[in-house]
Amino acid sequence: MTQYHPLSEGEAIQFAKSIPDLFAADAQLASREIGDGNLNLVFHITEPATGKSIILKQALPYAKVVGESWPLTLDRARIESEALQYEGALCPDLVPRVYQYVPELALTVMEDLSDHVIMRRGLIERNKYPKFAGDIGRFLSHTLFYSSDLGMNQQDKKERVKQFINPDLCKITEDLIFDDPYRDAETNSFDETIRDEAEALWNDTELKLEVARLRHGFLTNAQALLHGDLHTGSIFITEQSTKVIDPEFAYYGPMGFDIGAVIANLLLNFAGQEGWSPDAASRAEYREYLLTTVKDTWTTFEWEFRSLWNDRSVDRISNTPGFQDIYVEQLLRDTIGYAGCKMVRRIVGLAHVADIDKIEDAAAKERAQRLALAIGKTLIKHHRSSVSIDEVLDIAVKAAAQ
Amino acid sequence: MTQYHPLSEGEAIQFAKSIPDLFAADAQLASREIGDGNLNLVFHITEPATGKSIILKQALPYAKVVGESWPLTLDRARIESEALQYEGALCPDLVPRVYQYVPELALTVMEDLSDHVIMRRGLIERNKYPKFAGDIGRFLSHTLFYSSDLGMNQQDKKERVKQFINPDLCKITEDLIFDDPYRDAETNSFDETIRDEAEALWNDTELKLEVARLRHGFLTNAQALLHGDLHTGSIFITEQSTKVIDPEFAYYGPMGFDIGAVIANLLLNFAGQEGWSPDAASRAEYREYLLTTVKDTWTTFEWEFRSLWNDRSVDRISNTPGFQDIYVEQLLRDTIGYAGCKMVRRIVGLAHVADIDKIEDAAAKERAQRLALAIGKTLIKHHRSSVSIDEVLDIAVKAAAQ
Repeated sequence: MTQYHPLSEGEAIQFAKSIPDLFAADAQLASREIGDGNLNLVFHITEPATGKSIILKQALPYAKVVGESWPLTLDRARIESEALQYEGALCPDLVPRVYQYVPELALTVMEDLSDHVIMRRGLIERNKYPKFAGDIGRFLSHTLFYSSDLGMNQQDKKERVKQFINPDLCKITEDLIFDDPYRDAETNSFDETIRDEAEALWNDTELKLEVARLRHGFLTNAQALLHGDLHTGSIFITEQSTKVIDPEFAYYGPMGFDIGAVIANLLLNFAGQEGWSPDAASRAEYREYLLTTVKDTWTTFEWEFRSLWNDRSVDRISNTPGFQDIYVEQLLRDTIGYAGCKMVRRIVGLAHVADIDKIEDAAAKERAQRLALAIGKTLIKHHRSSVSIDEVLDIAVKAAAQ
Repeated sequence: MTQYHPLSEGEAIQFAKSIPDLFAADAQLASREIGDGNLNLVFHITEPATGKSIILKQALPYAKVVGESWPLTLDRARIESEALQYEGALCPDLVPRVYQYVPELALTVMEDLSDHVIMRRGLIERNKYPKFAGDIGRFLSHTLFYSSDLGMNQQDKKERVKQFINPDLCKITEDLIFDDPYRDAETNSFDETIRDEAEALWNDTELKLEVARLRHGFLTNAQALLHGDLHTGSIFITEQSTKVIDPEFAYYGPMGFDIGAVIANLLLNFAGQEGWSPDAASRAEYREYLLTTVKDTWTTFEWEFRSLWNDRSVDRISNTPGFQDIYVEQLLRDTIGYAGCKMVRRIVGLAHVADIDKIEDAAAKERAQRLALAIGKTLIKHHRSSVSIDEVLDIAVKAAAQ
């Protein structure tokens, strides 16, 4: 089994048994492949007799999207497992445990989290997660701080940049987030009812210039080790627990890209409440919850990031008076700009979100799409002059009141 | 000879003879070691009968500075030879030809340029180099453009970032340029007559904040493949020819760091004219030449960089209206800021320049030191609001008139 090939379920079971200290040699195991089959195989291995379970995630050497298939490096499995281990060392309660990584099979053996739900689904069901903002704020502050020049030896950081060079996965982001939505690209996908919105994007010179700036930061700013794809589909959640999964897009980039991803996905659900809330009062109430979560996410991040900076910085020069404030203000601006980009691409670009696409009522869906675009575009255009996270809340509230 | 060891002159000759197509098998060769012995061995190999000659440059596994010795990776020989080959493919007339690189010996065999002089010495002798600004502007525009996300495939660029991860040599810059001069560091070296200036640096909060910003760019901004140490001691020159040597500090960093290095070293010589010009009229005249060269360097760089952008960009999005102007303005600001940093460190930091240190008249030397610091500090404080290279000339002229 040492040469790369996609595992069968039988092989997955056989492999699971071979892992030391997980199952007894004579254990009776069952396997169910639960991946979407586009990028990875995901085997859910269970031992009914004991209730024990694990996940085997194996990268496939291609990506299947809208019927097409293009080659995609297996090296992303290494990047994902190494990123999980980095994150797990800092926030062991916030990521799945990695039991083993098998490079030749591009296979990671990890903790089963099936007692959690995917956060996107939880938000669509209008659940509330009181611990989320604190958890994700801690995840962001710790993973970003400790991988940056502030929190780790600056020569070691350069070796880590090398470790996480990730051209194939970055290319997906560069195309689908920063490029295609702003031109009439074949990969775009949007409802004909909002063609006017798509065409407005393609002709909005001011907007495109701001996106070009943000894209340039994504291409060049090796600030911290990012998760790289931190939407609510990459988060498993319960009321008591938050687990960040799937860091295969990890690379050294601008911190605001990760923070912005979280905020964008909360705001996409905010827009989606056009379709999910049963009435105006409950819509207002759930939106209030979402905006509070946006604010608490940033506030927790900022507070913990500044605390780490004050207490754990390895970089004497970063204590130059005024530097921390300048740095954090720039983070807020980046966060807001990238949040905007991540909203726009989910409405007109290739990959959408269920928060909006699964709305059955066509008029509500269209309202949600236009609202998400209005918020996203305003965030992008406004980002370089932002000074407070409250502005994001104001932008969302005003757009929803239109 | 395949295991690393510092070569003897005899071994250097033996090695030179083994290189195909350079010397005849029975050639009579002579060798002279002309390195400074601190970082590298440099063997000048000549064949008196034909006049043919080459250089063998071998990295030593340590750096010797002020009597101390610290280990330094031999990998820098690979980085230097690969950077020379990259530069040579773009500007074959502006770098020495590399005949061979021998990784196990950390040895590069290259063109002998001993018909040229080191530019620093040429400027101290008050020579003029009419081709220099055009040559170095072309070198900077081509090497920086074609290694950036503007001029090369953006996925290949990420692999090249990996190829040029260079922690040891970057550490030298980070310490000696961006850190030590701004505190009472043991490595600093300055004349007691200007202790007031050094102490003023250590207590100048505004200045230190700007340096912290510029240092942050050096640490994180993977914009282009830099030479990384482009002072006038890294340039061989004649009236007809310019050759850039010694790119062992090459890494992916902010373009302005290289452009600023050239400008800083012209301005250090400008300050040094306190000691080298025989009278006020000739001082004014040579300074005018230096400032014209500063301006022409930037202007040639900008013109050629914009031409490459317009004609050779591989990045469609970089053609978004307005983006080029924003980008070039930021380059100018970075250039001016880094130029300032590179001036300050040559007066109070560890490594000085002969343009100032070799001035024999103590009063003239002190005036030159204070002038260089005045220009450098003003450039640093002013850099973020700059809009034209003319401001650099004004700053120098005004400081010299004090």
